[in-house]
Amino acid sequence: MPLALGRVPAEPVAAPHALPGFARSTVDGYAVRAADTYGASEGLPGYLEVTGAVRMGHEPDVAVGPGTAVSMPTGGVLPPGADAVVMVEYTQQAMTGTIEVVRPVAPGDGVVRADEDVAAGAELVPAGRPLRAQDLGMLSAAGVTVVAVRARPRVTVFSTGDEVVPPGTVALRPGQVRDATAVALAAMITQAGGEPAHGGIVPDDASALEAALRAALPASDLIVISAGSSVGARDETAGAVARLGAPGIWCHGLAIKPGKPTLLADCGGVPVIGLPGNPRSALVVFRLLGVPLVRLIGGCTTPPPEPSVRVRLARDLPSATGRLDVVQVCVSDGIATPMFGQSALLSVLTAADGFLIIPAEATGLDAGSEVQVTLYR
Amino acid sequence: MPLALGRVPAEPVAAPHALPGFARSTVDGYAVRAADTYGASEGLPGYLEVTGAVRMGHEPDVAVGPGTAVSMPTGGVLPPGADAVVMVEYTQQAMTGTIEVVRPVAPGDGVVRADEDVAAGAELVPAGRPLRAQDLGMLSAAGVTVVAVRARPRVTVFSTGDEVVPPGTVALRPGQVRDATAVALAAMITQAGGEPAHGGIVPDDASALEAALRAALPASDLIVISAGSSVGARDETAGAVARLGAPGIWCHGLAIKPGKPTLLADCGGVPVIGLPGNPRSALVVFRLLGVPLVRLIGGCTTPPPEPSVRVRLARDLPSATGRLDVVQVCVSDGIATPMFGQSALLSVLTAADGFLIIPAEATGLDAGSEVQVTLYR
Repeated sequence: MPLALGRVPAEPVAAPHALPGFARSTVDGYAVRAADTYGASEGLPGYLEVTGAVRMGHEPDVAVGPGTAVSMPTGGVLPPGADAVVMVEYTQQAMTGTIEVVRPVAPGDGVVRADEDVAAGAELVPAGRPLRAQDLGMLSAAGVTVVAVRARPRVTVFSTGDEVVPPGTVALRPGQVRDATAVALAAMITQAGGEPAHGGIVPDDASALEAALRAALPASDLIVISAGSSVGARDETAGAVARLGAPGIWCHGLAIKPGKPTLLADCGGVPVIGLPGNPRSALVVFRLLGVPLVRLIGGCTTPPPEPSVRVRLARDLPSATGRLDVVQVCVSDGIATPMFGQSALLSVLTAADGFLIIPAEATGLDAGSEVQVTLYR
Repeated sequence: MPLALGRVPAEPVAAPHALPGFARSTVDGYAVRAADTYGASEGLPGYLEVTGAVRMGHEPDVAVGPGTAVSMPTGGVLPPGADAVVMVEYTQQAMTGTIEVVRPVAPGDGVVRADEDVAAGAELVPAGRPLRAQDLGMLSAAGVTVVAVRARPRVTVFSTGDEVVPPGTVALRPGQVRDATAVALAAMITQAGGEPAHGGIVPDDASALEAALRAALPASDLIVISAGSSVGARDETAGAVARLGAPGIWCHGLAIKPGKPTLLADCGGVPVIGLPGNPRSALVVFRLLGVPLVRLIGGCTTPPPEPSVRVRLARDLPSATGRLDVVQVCVSDGIATPMFGQSALLSVLTAADGFLIIPAEATGLDAGSEVQVTLYR
C-alpha cells in the first residue's frame, strides 16, 4: 500500500463496509441514556449507577439501562441502550459505584455513528487523482490493501546531436557537450508519474534516428526527442518522425519563447515531442507540454496542485504579442526578479525559483504588476 | 544520477570546469570578425569570403581572418579569429564561396562565451536544497555524475492501542479498527525525504511500548508514535517515553486544534513525537510538526515550496484565542469552503483539497476574508 503513493486509481474505490463500523465514543467518560441527564447541573447533579466498563477493542459485556452508566475510553464501543457519552470532566465520583453528572448531554453527544466516517459503498478515493497520504490511510482503515492503478506511462527519451556525449564523459573534445537534457527530462517524467527510459544519444543522421525511434515505438506511450540544435539537425529529426507513422506531424514550430522549434507528432497512436536542441528551452517546453501529457496518459484527470506564489514584478518585462513568453524569476520578499540570459544557458534555470508566463496577447508586463509564479521543486 | 532527484546535497557542488567550455554559436550562420560587418545594410551589403565550415562536435579546422567567414551550425565551436556569428537570415549567397552580409553584428553577437553558463569553480547546486530536475541537468552538463547527499532520516512509526489491528485484517471484531495512521505517516515521511520503518502495533501496555521504543532507538533518527486515544493510554505512552532517556519530555499538550494531546520529547538525542490517537488529528499534527522535522534532520535547509492558493472564505470560522486551529477546506472557483466533522473523522481529510490555519491570536475569520490554503498532494 505505501507503494501506491502518488499512483492514479483506475477506478473509484468503494467502502466495503461502514466506518468506523460501530458507534464509538469520542471522549473519555460514561455511556448513558441522554434522557437520564436532562436538567443536570452543578447545583442539582444527576446520579447514575456505574454498572461496568468498556475495554478498548472489545465488545461491551454490559448494556446501559435507565439510571445506569458504563465507563468508556475514547474510541470504545458504545454499549447497547446508551445513546450518548458524558465527558469525564462533567462527572464526579459520588459514593462507590455511583457518579454525579453535572451537565446534560443530547443523544449523539460524545459519539461517532457507525457510518459517520464513511457509509458502506461510499467512495473512498476517486479515480484519476494521484493517491495522497490521507487516501492511503482511508483505504487502510477500510481494509483495502490492494488498489488497481493506472500503469505508469512509458516515456522514451532520445538525445540527438553529433556533439552530445554521455554525462559520464570525463574529458571533452573541443565542441563536445555532455547530455544535460536526458537526465532532467527523466526526472520530470518521474515527477509526473511516468516511467522514463533512455533511448540513448543518436548522432545527426536521419536514418539512424528513424531506426532508433522505430525500435522504441512498441514499448513507448510517449517519445521525447531533444532534437539537434541546428536547422539542419532539426529538419532531419522532423524527417525521421514524419516517416514513423500516420497521421504524423501535427505542428513544427510553436509561438512560445523559448521553445519555438518544438515539434509535435502522432506516429501510429504514439505521441512524439521533438524538443528544441538547447537544454533550457527543452526543459521549459517539456514542463509546459510534456508534463501534462505524461499525466494525461497516466489517467490523471485531476493533476496534483503546483506550488505557486502571487508576487509583484521587479521590473518591466517586454514581450512580443502573438507569442507566449516563459520567463524565469527569482522570488524574494514578495518580489519576482526576472532572470535574463540566452536561451542556451542552463544556469538560468538552476538559479531560478520559478517561472511566469506572459500570455500571447500581452505586449509585456509592467514593473509592480502582480504576477503568478509557478515554483520549481 | 536520476536517483538523486529530491535528495539533499551534503555540500555545495562546484563546477570542475567552465561551461559550455568553449565559445559557442547560438545561431545558424557565419562566424565573422564583427568589424568586417560594420555599416553593412540591405542596400550596401558587406562581402565575405567563406573559407570553411564548422562541424558539430568537432574542433574548427579553419580560422577567420579579415574579410572571411566560416559557416556555423547552432552550438558549434567559434573558430579562432572570429568574435561574432551573423545569423543566416541576415546573409545571402552571392557568388560561390562568397556571402553578402546585410546587417552588422557587434563582438559577442550570436555567441555564448566559454564560461558564460558557469565559470570554473562556481556553484552548480547549493547544499541543503533538494535536487530538482534542472539541477540534475546542470550536474550532468558538468560531468558530475555522483553527488554526496545527506542520508534519508530513518523514521520509525509505532501504532499503539488494544483496538488497533493491521490494515490487512479482513474481519473486524466489534471495537477493533484497522491501523490507518501508520501507512499515511509513512507516505508523508517519504514525501518529506525520510525513510519510514514500521515499528508495528503495540498494545496499551507501557512496558511493552517502552521495550519496543528502546529497541528502535539505535536505528532511528526520529520516532513517531500514534498514541492511544484515551487519557489512560496517552499517559502510558508518556510514561514509556519519559523512561527512554534524558532529557525526556519537552511538552505534553499543544495549543493546536486538532492535536492537543501531542507529546514532544528528546530521548538521548532522538526526537520522539507522540501523536494524538485519532488518525485525522495525528496526520494534521504530523504535517505541521513532523514533516518539517524530517526535512530538517535530512539536512534540508531550503524546503521545497508547498502548493497553496489565496482564496476567499465561504463562511465565518469561529476560533478560540490562544489556540492555533487547522481547518480542512474544499477549494473551488476561488472560494474555500470549510469542512466540519469530529476530529475522529478521517473522511474530512480525504474529502479536503487543503487546509488553512487560524492563528492563535485570532478569534476567528470572517466570511469573504482572503485566506491562504495549503493544498494536499
